[in-house]
Amino acid sequence: MNTLTVMMIGDVVGDPGLEALAQHLPNLIKTYNADFIAVNGENAADGFGMTDTVFQKILDAGADTVTSGNHVWEKREFWPTLETNPQVIRPANYPPGNPGKGYAKTRKNGKTFIAVNIQGREFMGSIDCPFTAMDRLLESPDFAGEDNPVILVDFHAESTQEKEALALYLDGRVSLVAGTHTHVQTADERLLPKGTAYITDLGMTGAEESIIGMDIAVCLDRARTQVPFRMECAKGPAAIHGIAARIDSSTGKPVSIERIRIFT
Amino acid sequence: MNTLTVMMIGDVVGDPGLEALAQHLPNLIKTYNADFIAVNGENAADGFGMTDTVFQKILDAGADTVTSGNHVWEKREFWPTLETNPQVIRPANYPPGNPGKGYAKTRKNGKTFIAVNIQGREFMGSIDCPFTAMDRLLESPDFAGEDNPVILVDFHAESTQEKEALALYLDGRVSLVAGTHTHVQTADERLLPKGTAYITDLGMTGAEESIIGMDIAVCLDRARTQVPFRMECAKGPAAIHGIAARIDSSTGKPVSIERIRIFT
Amino acid sequence: MNTLTVMMIGDVVGDPGLEALAQHLPNLIKTYNADFIAVNGENAADGFGMTDTVFQKILDAGADTVTSGNHVWEKREFWPTLETNPQVIRPANYPPGNPGKGYAKTRKNGKTFIAVNIQGREFMGSIDCPFTAMDRLLESPDFAGEDNPVILVDFHAESTQEKEALALYLDGRVSLVAGTHTHVQTADERLLPKGTAYITDLGMTGAEESIIGMDIAVCLDRARTQVPFRMECAKGPAAIHGIAARIDSSTGKPVSIERIRIFT
Amino acid sequence: MNTLTVMMIGDVVGDPGLEALAQHLPNLIKTYNADFIAVNGENAADGFGMTDTVFQKILDAGADTVTSGNHVWEKREFWPTLETNPQVIRPANYPPGNPGKGYAKTRKNGKTFIAVNIQGREFMGSIDCPFTAMDRLLESPDFAGEDNPVILVDFHAESTQEKEALALYLDGRVSLVAGTHTHVQTADERLLPKGTAYITDLGMTGAEESIIGMDIAVCLDRARTQVPFRMECAKGPAAIHGIAARIDSSTGKPVSIERIRIFT
Ligand SMILES: [Fe+2]
Ligand SMILES: [Fe+2]
Ligand SMILES: [Fe+2]
Ligand SMILES: [Fe+2]
Ligand SMILES: [Fe+2]
Ligand SMILES: [Fe+2]
Ligand SMILES: [Fe+2]
Ligand SMILES: [Fe+2]
Repeated sequence: MNTLTVMMIGDVVGDPGLEALAQHLPNLIKTYNADFIAVNGENAADGFGMTDTVFQKILDAGADTVTSGNHVWEKREFWPTLETNPQVIRPANYPPGNPGKGYAKTRKNGKTFIAVNIQGREFMGSIDCPFTAMDRLLESPDFAGEDNPVILVDFHAESTQEKEALALYLDGRVSLVAGTHTHVQTADERLLPKGTAYITDLGMTGAEESIIGMDIAVCLDRARTQVPFRMECAKGPAAIHGIAARIDSSTGKPVSIERIRIFT
Repeated sequence: MNTLTVMMIGDVVGDPGLEALAQHLPNLIKTYNADFIAVNGENAADGFGMTDTVFQKILDAGADTVTSGNHVWEKREFWPTLETNPQVIRPANYPPGNPGKGYAKTRKNGKTFIAVNIQGREFMGSIDCPFTAMDRLLESPDFAGEDNPVILVDFHAESTQEKEALALYLDGRVSLVAGTHTHVQTADERLLPKGTAYITDLGMTGAEESIIGMDIAVCLDRARTQVPFRMECAKGPAAIHGIAARIDSSTGKPVSIERIRIFT
Repeated sequence: MNTLTVMMIGDVVGDPGLEALAQHLPNLIKTYNADFIAVNGENAADGFGMTDTVFQKILDAGADTVTSGNHVWEKREFWPTLETNPQVIRPANYPPGNPGKGYAKTRKNGKTFIAVNIQGREFMGSIDCPFTAMDRLLESPDFAGEDNPVILVDFHAESTQEKEALALYLDGRVSLVAGTHTHVQTADERLLPKGTAYITDLGMTGAEESIIGMDIAVCLDRARTQVPFRMECAKGPAAIHGIAARIDSSTGKPVSIERIRIFT
Repeated sequence: MNTLTVMMIGDVVGDPGLEALAQHLPNLIKTYNADFIAVNGENAADGFGMTDTVFQKILDAGADTVTSGNHVWEKREFWPTLETNPQVIRPANYPPGNPGKGYAKTRKNGKTFIAVNIQGREFMGSIDCPFTAMDRLLESPDFAGEDNPVILVDFHAESTQEKEALALYLDGRVSLVAGTHTHVQTADERLLPKGTAYITDLGMTGAEESIIGMDIAVCLDRARTQVPFRMECAKGPAAIHGIAARIDSSTGKPVSIERIRIFT
C-alpha cells in the first residue's frame, strides 16, 4: 500500500508559538516525511487573529494550508489576504458574504489534498449548521469531482459532544477530523468505525507556562474578578501539539493517527 | 521515599459504565496497588444522576469516595443518601443549603485522604466562585488541621481555560487536580511547577461507540434539529478512563501521574 | 383610507392562560373589531409546548393562526398536527426537516394575511440566521407574489438587541414585527421609520401571580439552588398581553399600534 | 401621608444620552418634585463604562447616585473614582476585591435613601448569587440599622425570569426594584403584593434611531456576520427612560410607580 502522511498542528498562540514552529516544524516534517501540513493560525498575532507577517511565518515554517477559527477577522488588515490568498481558510459555515473561504485544495506529490475549516455552535457564535455545511461541501463538484482526495477537516469547536457528533457524522466520508479551539490536546486519537481518523482536539502551539497560551496572571484575574481584562500572550518556552496521520493514497482512507507533542 | 497511589476514574455513564467498572476496577486497583480510589458517578443512573443502586455498585467495584457534578440532584430519591452517606460528594460551590457535602475525608492505610468536588462556571450553571470556595476549604480546620493530607480535587467543568486556571491557582496546595464533565480524556497529565498533579479531563467510563457515552443517533438528532430529544445511554462494550498518581506519603506531594484507559 | 385591524397575543401559559383567553379574547376581538388574530401558544400545555386539546382551545377563542417558539416540539403527540394543520406555525429558521412550517397564509375579509414565525439565536438554540431566513421568505413567490399582503412576524427571541436589529432590518418590508419569549410586555410599541409596526415583546397570557407564568416557589428554588427542578405553571387569575395594530388595507402598511393588557 | 418621590433613570448611552440628560433631567426633577434621583451610567462613555468627565455630567444633571453594571470597569482611569467617590456604585455581587462598592447611602430632605446595585447571572458573567448578596446586605447594620430607609435596587440583568424572581424575593423588604441592562423599557411597572414597586427594565437614555443606543449599521453587521465589529454609539435625538415612584416617608413603602419617557 502506498501511503501519504498528513500533519495537522493546533492553534499557534503568539510569538512563542511562532518561534517554536520556526525552530521545530521543519524537522518534524522531515521526521514524519509529511506530504501535507495544515496549521491553525487563529491566535498567531499576539493571541488574536493573524496579520500578513505572522501568516508568512507559518508558511515559512512549512504549512501548506493555514486554518483558523472564530478569531480570524480580528485584524482588519488581514482581510484582503483572507480573500485572495489560496493558502489560508476560515470556518466554512460563517455567512456567505464573510471575507475568506472555507476550504483549500492543494495538488502536491501527485495527490489532491483538501483542507476544510468548520466551526461548532455550542457555547460559540451563532453561525450556520456545521452538519449541513459539510454535507453541502462534500456534495459539491469541488469535492465530489475529485478522485479519492485526502480530505482533512479542522473542526473549531468548544463542546466535546458536538465534536464527536460531527466526526461520527462524517465518518467514512473524509480522511481526518481534528478538533481545535480548546487548546488542550485530547488523548482520544483513533480510527472511527467507517474509516476516518479523529482527535477531539489537537492542542495548541504556544507558551507552556500559560493558560491556553495566554498570560496566567491575567487569566486568573479575569476568572476571579469577572472584569474583562485584555488577555495577553504568555512568554517563555513553547510546546507544539498536533497529529500525524498516514493515509492510503489510493483510497484516501487513514491507516493510522498519532499524536505529536514537542516541548522546546 | 514512601509513596501512596491514588486513582481517579471519570464520569461513569449508565449500565455499560457500571459493568465495565465491576469487571475491571478491582483488577486495576490490584495492578496499580492503589491506596485510594475516587470515581465520578454523576451519569451512572442511565446518564442522569445516581440512585442508591448504582451508587452501591460503584462502591462495590472499589471506590472509596464517589464524586459527582451538575447532574447529581436529578434523582430526588438519592438526596437522602447524598445528605447522610459519607462516601458521596457533590460540587462544594453550590449554595450552602443544597443537599450533600463538597468533600469527604477518609482515613485509610495510615493516611488521610480528602476528596474535594468543585464545579466550574464557564458555560455552566451560576454557582459560587470555585477559586474562593477552594480558598475557604483549604483554610478551614478540616483541611488545614491535617498533617500533610492527600488532597484530591475533582474539578467538574466545561472550559479548558477555567480548568487550567484553577489548577494553577491550587498548584502546591493540593496533591492532585483532575477535571471531569467533558467525558473526553485529555493528554496533558503532568506535574505543575509547585507540585500538584494535573489533568484537564479524566475522560468517561461508558460505551465506546457513543457520543460522550450517549446514544449516537439521539445526539445527532439533537445537534441537527435543535429539538431537545431525551438523551439515552449508548449500549455496548465500554471503556474506563482515569488516572493513577503516586504521592509522597510524608509530604502529600505527587511524584507521578499516569493516564488509565481500559477498553473492554 | 380603509383599514384592517390585526391582533397579536403573547405566549399563552397553561390553563390560566387558556381560561383567560376563552373568557376575554372573543370580547377583545369584538371591541377592536379585529380582522385577523395570531396567538402564541408555545407554553399552552402546562407551560411546555402544545397538545391538540390546547391548540383547539386557542382556535376556539378566536385565533386565526397559532404561532409558537422553542418549546413547540416538546409534546411529540402534537407533531402530526404541526405538520398538517394550516393554522399552526413554528419558527421558520429551524432546519428544513423539522416538523411544521414557518408561515401560514390566510384569506379573510377580502385580504391576505401572512403570519410568520421566526426565532432568535442570542442566548438560544443554534439555528439558522433569522435575517437570511426572512430575506428568503420575503423573496419567495408565496410572499412576493401577493398583492400588498398584511405580513405579521412573531419574532421569538431573548435578546433586545437582536429583536430591534431584525425589526429594523425588516422595516418597510412587513406590516408588523412583534417579539415573544421573554413573557414581559415592553413599552416600546411604535411605527418604525420606513413603516413597520413594532414591539419588542407582547408579554405573556398567564397567571398574574407568577414568574413569567410559572410557579413562584419553583422558580425561586431553581434560581437559588441551581438545581433543575421541573417548572410548573402558576395558578390563579391571569392577564392577557398583546397588541392591536391598524393596517392600511391597500398598502399593507400600519397606521397605528396599541398595547393590550387585560387583567381578569 | 407624607410622601417622597424617587426617580430612577436607565442606562445612559454615550453623548446623545448625556445631552438629553443635561437638557431634560433638571426639568423632570422639578416636574416630579423628585427628592432622590439615581441614574445608571454604565454606557455613558461612548457606550462602554464611565470616565470622570461623563460621571460629572451625570451628577451635574441632577443625579444623587450613579448606578452601573457589567461595563463599569472598562475605563481603567475611572477605577479610583469608583473606589473613593461616594456617589457611584457598581453591582454588589461582584467579588469583594473588585474596585468600587455596591450601595450608597444618602441623607437628603430629612430621609435616608440607600441605592443598591446588583447584577443577574443568567446569560451574564459568573458572579455571586444576587439573592444571597441581597440577604446579606439587608441584614447588615448599614441597612437594618436605619429607620425605615428608602431602599432602591437597580437590578442589572438580562433575563426576565431572574428579574421577576429577585423582585418577588425582595417584595416587602425594599422600596423599589428597577431592572436595567436590556435598554428596552417594559410596561409592567406595578406594586408587588407585599409592597415593593417594580419594573423589569427602565429602558435606556440614548439615541432613538439606534439598536439599544448603538449604531444600527454596526449592530446589523455584527448580527449578520458574527464578526465582533467594535460597537459604536448611535447619533441623533435621544430619549430618556425611567420611572418615578412615590414613597410613604414614614414606612419607606411605595404608593405608586409611573413610567417616564421623554423624547427630545
Ligand atoms: Fe484558538
Ligand atoms: Fe478559537
Ligand atoms: Fe458527566
Ligand atoms: Fe457534568
Ligand atoms: Fe414562551
Ligand atoms: Fe420561548
Ligand atoms: Fe447598559
Ligand atoms: Fe449592562
